[in-house]
Amino acid sequence: MCELLGMSANVPTDICFSFTGLMQRGGRTGPHRDGWGITFYEGKGFRTFKDPNPSCDSKIAELVQNYPIKSCSVVSHIRQANRGEVNLENTHPFNRELWGRYWTYAHNGQLTGYEDLDTGRHMPVGQTDSEKAFCWLLNQLEQRFPSKPDSLDDVVEVLTQCCDELRKLGVFNLLLSDGDYVFSYCTNHLYWITRRAPFGKASLIDEDVTINFQEETTPHDVVTVVATQPLTLNEQWTRLKPGEYALFYHGEKISGNSEQLLDVDFAEAKPGNQAPSAM
Amino acid sequence: MCELLGMSANVPTDICFSFTGLMQRGGRTGPHRDGWGITFYEGKGFRTFKDPNPSCDSKIAELVQNYPIKSCSVVSHIRQANRGEVNLENTHPFNRELWGRYWTYAHNGQLTGYEDLDTGRHMPVGQTDSEKAFCWLLNQLEQRFPSKPDSLDDVVEVLTQCCDELRKLGVFNLLLSDGDYVFSYCTNHLYWITRRAPFGKASLIDEDVTINFQEETTPHDVVTVVATQPLTLNEQWTRLKPGEYALFYHGEKISGNSEQLLDVDFAEAKPGNQAPSAM
Repeated sequence: MCELLGMSANVPTDICFSFTGLMQRGGRTGPHRDGWGITFYEGKGFRTFKDPNPSCDSKIAELVQNYPIKSCSVVSHIRQANRGEVNLENTHPFNRELWGRYWTYAHNGQLTGYEDLDTGRHMPVGQTDSEKAFCWLLNQLEQRFPSKPDSLDDVVEVLTQCCDELRKLGVFNLLLSDGDYVFSYCTNHLYWITRRAPFGKASLIDEDVTINFQEETTPHDVVTVVATQPLTLNEQWTRLKPGEYALFYHGEKISGNSEQLLDVDFAEAKPGNQAPSAM
Repeated sequence: MCELLGMSANVPTDICFSFTGLMQRGGRTGPHRDGWGITFYEGKGFRTFKDPNPSCDSKIAELVQNYPIKSCSVVSHIRQANRGEVNLENTHPFNRELWGRYWTYAHNGQLTGYEDLDTGRHMPVGQTDSEKAFCWLLNQLEQRFPSKPDSLDDVVEVLTQCCDELRKLGVFNLLLSDGDYVFSYCTNHLYWITRRAPFGKASLIDEDVTINFQEETTPHDVVTVVATQPLTLNEQWTRLKPGEYALFYHGEKISGNSEQLLDVDFAEAKPGNQAPSAM
């Protein structure tokens, strides 16, 4: 098993607080000693920091914790290897281009019978079931939509169908982002929380750290955090059910299995304002 | 104009010394204030650090300089924007997958009439002539070789033909790597030097730093550095001629326009031993 952490925000927000909690599970409070990674989007571009070393004693993890990088979309992962050896090419998240956007993918779980998934021209570089499933997802999307469709509904429909297929192969908890949207899919462990004014305080489960979000935010900020396990003690996290997905856009949940999409123009998605925030 | 820096080594080598020189050109001794980036390969995996901020005062550049990351193949770039605004998606190097390997690309120069280059399914994310040319290169390679060919000669032949085409559109100095090979192509400014035992001392042109390679290396180390301008005062750099290319494999130049390839099995390329080194 691994751990996932994602963020969707309407203002560039640093994730140092949540990341600090997650990193402790990378070999200290958790068994996930087999590497970690995090992708921050800035506009259509992104930075990925990753390390096959345990996050709890990674120099690069230290940088990410101490140097607040502001982003509206973040995908992070710490790994406990089950398929594929411990090395950089097997370390999540994975970044690939489709439709002129960079897609970032992190998977929690384990699949069997994934070897025959047809990845088309999207070839895995490493040996993990996770990367193979990502390549298959991209191939499915591209086969169905050779160019970027205008309708977000259509993309979400195909995505969820693909996730349902992968769930038949084992545990498939997913975080996927193109920089504007953060898509999450649950097989067994996935929780999310949306923080907005009035902001309160929160304390990490994994380390003795408390934050007063009110001091770190503006009244307009809306920030959602998604994780395979709740990261804070004194907040109410919503748990996704098996087979359930949640789609977040700039901090707001805009779609779930039993809901209608809000009216967001997929082709014209715009970033939020630039006031900094922290989660 | 921008600056390029590449390294090919037969042992994992840190590039802190050369990188320190390059970074000074990012706004201090050079006018390249519009971002910088560097890709380090580790096996088939890679890490890319990039920043749209000037390298001379970039926190992340500081990390890369102070935290010696060992690699056998490195591609680095500092940017003076001419096409495309200053942001992360326009910052080199660019990384894309082809044939189940990650390819890293950095371009120095400026192209005109590049807008019509057919990039096929390899869509640019940013707005630069450089990324467009990279996507076109990948498309050309994939059109010619739908799967990875066994013959390195064939790849190099197509690559050089493509580079000759791009050179007709303007200045195209190139660094390209798949992690095993570092390919360089020159339009006007590209220099390389291979360091091997007996190692001497070298002093940076851009900063008052001298290194004694003998203290940083083993007698078996072979390390080549490629750059758009020589980085050291007291060494003999070889200048590539317009239209000339040089292909490096684990530190050794194995191919140039007027030479035969050494017998390296492209499909079975192996990394070198693991004794650390520094350049």
